[in-house]
Amino acid sequence: MSKYLVISSDCHAGLPPERYRDYVDPEYRETFDLALPVQMEMLSQASEKFLVADINREWRRGRERQLAGAWDHAERVEVLDGDGIAGEIIFPDGITESNTPPFGAGLSLPTEDVDPNLQWAGARAHNRWMAELCGLAPERRAGVAIVPALWDVDEAVREVEWARDNGLKGVLLPCMWGKLAPYHHPKYDPLWAACQDLGLVAHFHSGPAPTEDYFGGSLFAPADGEEQVELPGAVGIYISEVAWWNVRPLTFLIWGGVFERFPKIKVAITEGTSIWVPSYLELLDQRYGVTPYSAKLGDFTSHLSMKPSEYFARNVMVGASCMPRREAELRNEIGVGNIMWGSDYPHPEGSWPQTRDQMVETFHGLPESDIAAMLGGNAASFYGFDREALQPLVDRIGPDKSWFNA
Amino acid sequence: MSKYLVISSDCHAGLPPERYRDYVDPEYRETFDLALPVQMEMLSQASEKFLVADINREWRRGRERQLAGAWDHAERVEVLDGDGIAGEIIFPDGITESNTPPFGAGLSLPTEDVDPNLQWAGARAHNRWMAELCGLAPERRAGVAIVPALWDVDEAVREVEWARDNGLKGVLLPCMWGKLAPYHHPKYDPLWAACQDLGLVAHFHSGPAPTEDYFGGSLFAPADGEEQVELPGAVGIYISEVAWWNVRPLTFLIWGGVFERFPKIKVAITEGTSIWVPSYLELLDQRYGVTPYSAKLGDFTSHLSMKPSEYFARNVMVGASCMPRREAELRNEIGVGNIMWGSDYPHPEGSWPQTRDQMVETFHGLPESDIAAMLGGNAASFYGFDREALQPLVDRIGPDKSWFNA
Repeated sequence: MSKYLVISSDCHAGLPPERYRDYVDPEYRETFDLALPVQMEMLSQASEKFLVADINREWRRGRERQLAGAWDHAERVEVLDGDGIAGEIIFPDGITESNTPPFGAGLSLPTEDVDPNLQWAGARAHNRWMAELCGLAPERRAGVAIVPALWDVDEAVREVEWARDNGLKGVLLPCMWGKLAPYHHPKYDPLWAACQDLGLVAHFHSGPAPTEDYFGGSLFAPADGEEQVELPGAVGIYISEVAWWNVRPLTFLIWGGVFERFPKIKVAITEGTSIWVPSYLELLDQRYGVTPYSAKLGDFTSHLSMKPSEYFARNVMVGASCMPRREAELRNEIGVGNIMWGSDYPHPEGSWPQTRDQMVETFHGLPESDIAAMLGGNAASFYGFDREALQPLVDRIGPDKSWFNA
Repeated sequence: MSKYLVISSDCHAGLPPERYRDYVDPEYRETFDLALPVQMEMLSQASEKFLVADINREWRRGRERQLAGAWDHAERVEVLDGDGIAGEIIFPDGITESNTPPFGAGLSLPTEDVDPNLQWAGARAHNRWMAELCGLAPERRAGVAIVPALWDVDEAVREVEWARDNGLKGVLLPCMWGKLAPYHHPKYDPLWAACQDLGLVAHFHSGPAPTEDYFGGSLFAPADGEEQVELPGAVGIYISEVAWWNVRPLTFLIWGGVFERFPKIKVAITEGTSIWVPSYLELLDQRYGVTPYSAKLGDFTSHLSMKPSEYFARNVMVGASCMPRREAELRNEIGVGNIMWGSDYPHPEGSWPQTRDQMVETFHGLPESDIAAMLGGNAASFYGFDREALQPLVDRIGPDKSWFNA
């Protein structure tokens, strides 16, 4: 036992867009063929505009083979072995701006100006392929099914059942609901029941945010004849706010009593950092307590038998991708049992190909049991990985415990 | 000097709705007469629904005379003297749900389903009355003008000039912009220039939030034949999120470079607690630093010569209404020079009529200079109160320093 079991709580995979065709329901293939060139053009524009094309190209150069692990089983095994990662939770959107599912059914799951049937078709195509990918190494891969749950809860429940029947271990839900019902609405109870009873983790993954507020878009477009103004600091605002939009659903779940009615449901908030946890829980607990501020607002807590922080400790995990040292130092305030390290492969903001250095920088000198929990133990329990089955792999590829000595 | 100078950074005043008539521009008086009964009905409904009518009625019973200080000069003097408060910053919306300006021009300043001309007319009516109220005790009262700045920046600038010419000390800006341009848009530069050059503090006051997300409203109304579902925990979600919506404009100002281009502008974030400050600044500073996360996003910091926390320390004050002990203990992390205590009179969540007890509970045992700064010294400098003129009043009504001994 000289090695740590490492499970990345945040990895991504996706096919090159054209290869999703065979996974799309036949009745949507004609639409797929029409939409593909549009999607390719949009991805290309996005990667020129929002991301900085030069930096991305530079970063990708010479790594094409390893990045193909975004969809290729053998390459993926080689990269993860090299990183010392025995298990992984797999979200959609592989190589940034390149491997997103059809019909905009990727991480952000927009609810406006989209066709729900098409988004569902794209999600199902990805889920089918994801089940295949995970089936090639089921002891290592916990795949996450895309579930655009906001339009039709019955359909969402059926997809949760399909995911369980096909070996997937969790579902990805939209972080933003637009003009649809937020997550405290009781209509979602069958969805929470299905996740709880079938043991699938419900995920909210960072990324979505009201980008039109930052970058303009159609919201405050210039009038005829005016020039489009560049909005200074838009990217800074996005990366400052995006973690809040990622955790926002949790506020609705907690106050909505979802953890009260479904005490065994498991929820993960992924890639939104963990730095917000202590002050977030302190705020909610303060609001939960009776104060002069809340007295005028009447009774809004008697449907909750526990404090918000207690639900968090019991039901919620934080997927702490590329966790910085500072968050490891705060682990007791955050909850050492609620943190799951992640590598975010194959995204350029992820730890690969510097995973070993980043891990050691973050965790060196901490107690062995804390490191073991955050690097893999917590995720193993939460997702039900078979530790015994993984042990020979860990013995071969896992990071040496001695690397982390102070 | 055995007494503290106390300035409340958060007080409210407003006329009973019908008495605003004389302050409304003549061309809007006919509309005023038509709108008044509708407004009265809406206030009555709001106070039955959102607030808990019983609690409010109970709280008001026997305090009718002191609550009339919301608009009556003499009563206001008596209440503030009794609280030991020598100076105050005055926002609109006096008695909760009763003294709001005409045409919905109160604290929340909505941008959708409203007539901009009417909201401006309501704001101007209130500002005229506020200038009168402050004129009755100019050394004690720093009035805040309502400025619905999002529709027309030139008009906003003219109102800032009017406010300065009429003795007001600050402006209240909308916390939420709906589909209009957020505050990093360069079109607002003339507004920031006016505030800076005329020395008026720009305020964002807590209250607005996307309440339809919490309470339903028209957003996800039931279909024909369905019953309206009660959404559990809606109030809890509101009071958990509202501080974030209050500070959100600051994120846009900081990244938008407003403090870089207008280094002397003064901004106050009022009644949003101060508990968020340390983690907020830590987050923004982290994003400002170069990380693998931000590298792929290109240059978004070179237009800022200082870290976000440095702009905050220099340009921003927090109006910490009814500040709890916990925030006083965190004063050095928040910035002891950036905290301004407030009483929130005449709101039921405010400290009155237990101001002395609450103050002592919050500040007892802290260094005298820190208490002096937070209770009044910071506000005196920020708003330019004449401390010498106030000294005789402080000697008469101010809280004894000895009350705060450990």
